[in-house]
Amino acid sequence: MTTDSEGTNKNGAISFELINDKTLFPDLPPGPLDRYRNSAKFDWRKLALTLDGERILRFRNSVWSYLEDNHLFARGYEEQTLDQNREITVRRINKVIEKEFISLADYILDPEITFTFMMSLIAYDPSCTIKASLSTKMVPGVLRTMGTDRLLQYAEDAENGLITSCFALTEVSHGSNALGMRTTATYDVKTRQFILNTPDFEAAKCWIGNLGKTATHAIVYAQLYTPDGQHHGLNGFWVPVRDAKTLEPYAGVTVGDLGEKIGLNGLDNGFVMFNNYRIPKEFLLARTGDISDDGHYVSPIKNNKKRIGASFGALSGGRVNICGISTVYLIKAISIAVRYSASRTQFKDDDAVDELPILEYQSQQYRLLPHLSTAIVQKVFTMWFTNTFTEFSKSFFTGEIVPYVGNEIHALSSAIKPVCTWAVRDAIQDCREAAGGHGYLRVAGFGDLRDDNDPNLTYEGENNVLLQQASNWLLSCRKNGYAHFAEASPLKSAQFLSTFDKVIKLKCGWTTTQEALNSQNMLIALDWLVAWLLEKTYQHSLELQKSGKSAFNVRNNIQVFHAQTLSIVYGQRAIFSVFSDFVSKLENTPERAVLERVTSMYGANLLLRHIGLFYEGGFISSARPVELLKTGIIELLPLLKDDAIPLVDVIAPSDFILNSPLGMSDGQVYKHLQSVLWQTPSTFERPKWWKLVTHWKEKENSKL
Amino acid sequence: MTTDSEGTNKNGAISFELINDKTLFPDLPPGPLDRYRNSAKFDWRKLALTLDGERILRFRNSVWSYLEDNHLFARGYEEQTLDQNREITVRRINKVIEKEFISLADYILDPEITFTFMMSLIAYDPSCTIKASLSTKMVPGVLRTMGTDRLLQYAEDAENGLITSCFALTEVSHGSNALGMRTTATYDVKTRQFILNTPDFEAAKCWIGNLGKTATHAIVYAQLYTPDGQHHGLNGFWVPVRDAKTLEPYAGVTVGDLGEKIGLNGLDNGFVMFNNYRIPKEFLLARTGDISDDGHYVSPIKNNKKRIGASFGALSGGRVNICGISTVYLIKAISIAVRYSASRTQFKDDDAVDELPILEYQSQQYRLLPHLSTAIVQKVFTMWFTNTFTEFSKSFFTGEIVPYVGNEIHALSSAIKPVCTWAVRDAIQDCREAAGGHGYLRVAGFGDLRDDNDPNLTYEGENNVLLQQASNWLLSCRKNGYAHFAEASPLKSAQFLSTFDKVIKLKCGWTTTQEALNSQNMLIALDWLVAWLLEKTYQHSLELQKSGKSAFNVRNNIQVFHAQTLSIVYGQRAIFSVFSDFVSKLENTPERAVLERVTSMYGANLLLRHIGLFYEGGFISSARPVELLKTGIIELLPLLKDDAIPLVDVIAPSDFILNSPLGMSDGQVYKHLQSVLWQTPSTFERPKWWKLVTHWKEKENSKL
Repeated sequence: MTTDSEGTNKNGAISFELINDKTLFPDLPPGPLDRYRNSAKFDWRKLALTLDGERILRFRNSVWSYLEDNHLFARGYEEQTLDQNREITVRRINKVIEKEFISLADYILDPEITFTFMMSLIAYDPSCTIKASLSTKMVPGVLRTMGTDRLLQYAEDAENGLITSCFALTEVSHGSNALGMRTTATYDVKTRQFILNTPDFEAAKCWIGNLGKTATHAIVYAQLYTPDGQHHGLNGFWVPVRDAKTLEPYAGVTVGDLGEKIGLNGLDNGFVMFNNYRIPKEFLLARTGDISDDGHYVSPIKNNKKRIGASFGALSGGRVNICGISTVYLIKAISIAVRYSASRTQFKDDDAVDELPILEYQSQQYRLLPHLSTAIVQKVFTMWFTNTFTEFSKSFFTGEIVPYVGNEIHALSSAIKPVCTWAVRDAIQDCREAAGGHGYLRVAGFGDLRDDNDPNLTYEGENNVLLQQASNWLLSCRKNGYAHFAEASPLKSAQFLSTFDKVIKLKCGWTTTQEALNSQNMLIALDWLVAWLLEKTYQHSLELQKSGKSAFNVRNNIQVFHAQTLSIVYGQRAIFSVFSDFVSKLENTPERAVLERVTSMYGANLLLRHIGLFYEGGFISSARPVELLKTGIIELLPLLKDDAIPLVDVIAPSDFILNSPLGMSDGQVYKHLQSVLWQTPSTFERPKWWKLVTHWKEKENSKL
Repeated sequence: MTTDSEGTNKNGAISFELINDKTLFPDLPPGPLDRYRNSAKFDWRKLALTLDGERILRFRNSVWSYLEDNHLFARGYEEQTLDQNREITVRRINKVIEKEFISLADYILDPEITFTFMMSLIAYDPSCTIKASLSTKMVPGVLRTMGTDRLLQYAEDAENGLITSCFALTEVSHGSNALGMRTTATYDVKTRQFILNTPDFEAAKCWIGNLGKTATHAIVYAQLYTPDGQHHGLNGFWVPVRDAKTLEPYAGVTVGDLGEKIGLNGLDNGFVMFNNYRIPKEFLLARTGDISDDGHYVSPIKNNKKRIGASFGALSGGRVNICGISTVYLIKAISIAVRYSASRTQFKDDDAVDELPILEYQSQQYRLLPHLSTAIVQKVFTMWFTNTFTEFSKSFFTGEIVPYVGNEIHALSSAIKPVCTWAVRDAIQDCREAAGGHGYLRVAGFGDLRDDNDPNLTYEGENNVLLQQASNWLLSCRKNGYAHFAEASPLKSAQFLSTFDKVIKLKCGWTTTQEALNSQNMLIALDWLVAWLLEKTYQHSLELQKSGKSAFNVRNNIQVFHAQTLSIVYGQRAIFSVFSDFVSKLENTPERAVLERVTSMYGANLLLRHIGLFYEGGFISSARPVELLKTGIIELLPLLKDDAIPLVDVIAPSDFILNSPLGMSDGQVYKHLQSVLWQTPSTFERPKWWKLVTHWKEKENSKL
């Protein structure tokens, strides 16, 4: 998972030349952050190479430099209307497509470059990235895999930006419950066409990214009916919605824009209703089932359990990406907040001359450093998961499917999407608050990050609904006996449960803060917690079953304090395990040492969040371990505080991409703040309606 | 605390006529919410009268009706620029001033009406409310109390809206540390003027509400220097900044707008810098200290400990209001989310006909019902605190100052502002997520509520800084011995600590879920927790002191896991105590019964959040009490779920004020959603830049 293209471990010897290559690592500008950089206990450039490797770093820099050098991507302080936002986003997408940063081959074969490209663009602007990848990557991808050859030309046109495409699944009154969708496609033998119908507004397809203003074609999921009245479930159809020459909707199609959202406003989400709208028979995505000319449904593949598991896994791709996207937001937020906290001073000791940077305050440290740790942990984890997922996808296409992987990926992605996106939600908020009043300025960036992260909590599976998917998998494996986890968890997210009897007997044995902060000990604690929660939840479900509840009601009634907590802890343990495994394989260097502090900070807070459960289940039975954990965290804070600025230098995007006066790499907060104000056209303008302030009483009277 | 103007308890007999008075309680419209309303276990109208009383309800309705009936306050779906937002806000303020909902006498003597007026307007639009009350109430209030008679005319002009006023305290590089401010006012004997200077941009006064575009006058806090070079600390000055006839800034004044913020954009926050700007000697707010004509500083009052405590308390007014404002946002958010969850159906049991409202799912219940409880608890608490604060303020003016009250109010408001505003922050977020994708639409309202609540976490004391104020008070009282709390806490927020020896020996004795959910038992647990945390924090501070740390460093290093947690729990306990006391004094009615369920839900979650501490300190020593608490919550969920819609009917503002298609009282979510889309002008418009989508490749080529 951590090898670069040449297959050598990134932690191998890092040459002096490489580190001093200014094209790779330009000098950081001087300023108030120097004091932290000068006393760094590790080399941020070495750590950057350890985490990403030269190839990724150079590629990322090249994307960012291109954006910075191209006038279309210039940042400005002019206010933008929704329409202006959409327009500039389309202009930028056209430029991105034209530039062809990654080829179709890269997209399929080089997950690290593909992921890096997407995340680099997300760091610039998520609307632009999501819009482009929906139309030019994801929809064509589905066309290529689920459609037959007759739709290949459309896939190519979408990839080249000649048409704009989108997915239409969600309906106004049905989101999570896809089976409840009510849009219909009825086959008409006479004309060899499907007739699409939307019974009412509640069945309108909605939330469809790209559909609001720009899409010409959509993959629409509709209930398929054959002329014999038979229902063949939800199927995908390729549906032209607007004329690709005029962008006007076709007759029979009512398509509109959902308007302003909380965030992601460069992306035009839309809705669509069909009224006896006809499409050719060839537009059914027929890979898994087709209609004969005389109107009978024919399925080429047998219902194959392995295949279903695998196709479940395939849906996980979106969730893996969302974890990555979310982590990019976290990286931006924490970079701004940490740099701001190191630059801004406030209060001082009675006999001191200078005020202290607010990063020196314990409460500020505890507000930010756990989130900084999370940023690094999730960065490593999401790259691992991307690679794992790509391996799985390849096996899916080559037919060499490893048993059980699909189901495990589905469960794992269902658990880690909530875990990652909620962690980022809370982190962005703490960062915004940690930056005080100035953090409330729009230009500071926290508001947009929060607003853009918000849909991550909902789409590609609402977080609470997803948690159920993860616990369902764990519970169904448990039903087969714990030994089953040995084969059911090839990715090792739950393999440790195969020795349940041993795991559940574990007790906390820390006697020093070092032991409390040790990652192996933390993993033991998390193993125990997953095991305890799973068994507790399983027993609770058996009780409810015995009391006569239906399977549906049992699932509904084991969520709170049981299944939900189980899924969350299962996901957190997996993330922690991948990261601590990554660190443990590094050579003993100062760079590894700082990552160990990161591991400890991340893990200790994880354990502390669940401390009540450790007591409740008997893993902990006195106050001592908790005191050790807390003391450990308090002792870690000043150490990690010293690492914080160089750690941010490792993960932060370039100043142009970060784009916040509070978070520039020179730490000159007030200089940049003043620049923004003086460069904003309206700062010193008297409003046109000034008489409403000065003469309104007179006006009122004159009306009488 | 819960008496209406006639002095009768609101819980007194409620007449049949009153309940059926349609001018007070109009019929609720039919729709999908009927099923919940019809099975209600209490009368929502009786509960509304119990919580607010007829007088408040009628007054509130009259304010809302006025707004709904006046065209200036009409809601619309047109996109608004920042400038348009500011303009309409000023027009509305002019209307509000003209209408004179409350008189100056009400403002001073009738806290319930004043508070109700402010909160009713906040529910419509916070920018408008804050802008108006800053200029017409708060600034004139300070002018009247801190200024001498020579400034009275200005107070009157501001109250009448003839001038627009603001407070200028915060500077660009100094917020929390007011003593570090660097704006100077130097007295010039020759001209009998003060000369104001801002040394650099970092010392610019900033974040000043009303100053961006509209203020003509500001109370500016500056370091006062007399000609002999002596420094006399931070003093307030009345400073004309813009010409009240032309709204152009005066020479020597650089005043500008801070631009777009995350929220509250109707309010124009600004900054100002002075360059040898002269104001008359009479413009010093001289109540606590004046300058003689020949340039000597004269203070009329002695440094009086009581008086300082009292003036500390006076600063608490803003924080009390913020708790109220925050609670209004919470009420709006939870009303929308609960009604949406009762209207929207999704999934069903295998053999069921209809899909279930999502409110029927355990996980959705646990997402929302604790927040619904918090809304009701905080509503009662903030009204209590407003009344308490007003009593205190009156005593301040009449000179009959009750000893210690000022300090306690300062500590309590410092603790409950973070507690309330963070609770609301988390609740709004959960409500937004609970409403799924549709909750992400701007028109749903959650985004604005979140964005408008956000500054509450920062202004009038950044939350983490405020927490220190509360713990400082508790620790300093503790230093005098626990017995001291008997007199130091006349409001009873900490009086129970006077019997520390008894409290600290308490152990959890619940053996049934009923006992675990009993409010008296919960209060015992919270008493114990405050006591345990205080002593732990105090001992920790002694250790650090002994190790040679300065007082400054001791305070800094006891925050995490100690002082911060202490302040939070102290605040939470106070809120819980006031509410459960309120409920316990009600007669035994179905309305009281539902409030008891609310108390239990609120309290049980409070205890659960701190469960690790109860173990750590030995209040709990087995798994049993925790299981009881969790089982209790799980059993409460379906009961409180049945109460949820009528509870929302009690607290929700009118549909016009709530203004969310997801939360209307008829529950017709999709009908309203469709209306919004069809009424938004741009929904079906083809963008002017459509050729960028359809013909961009052609364009690109033509350029070559």
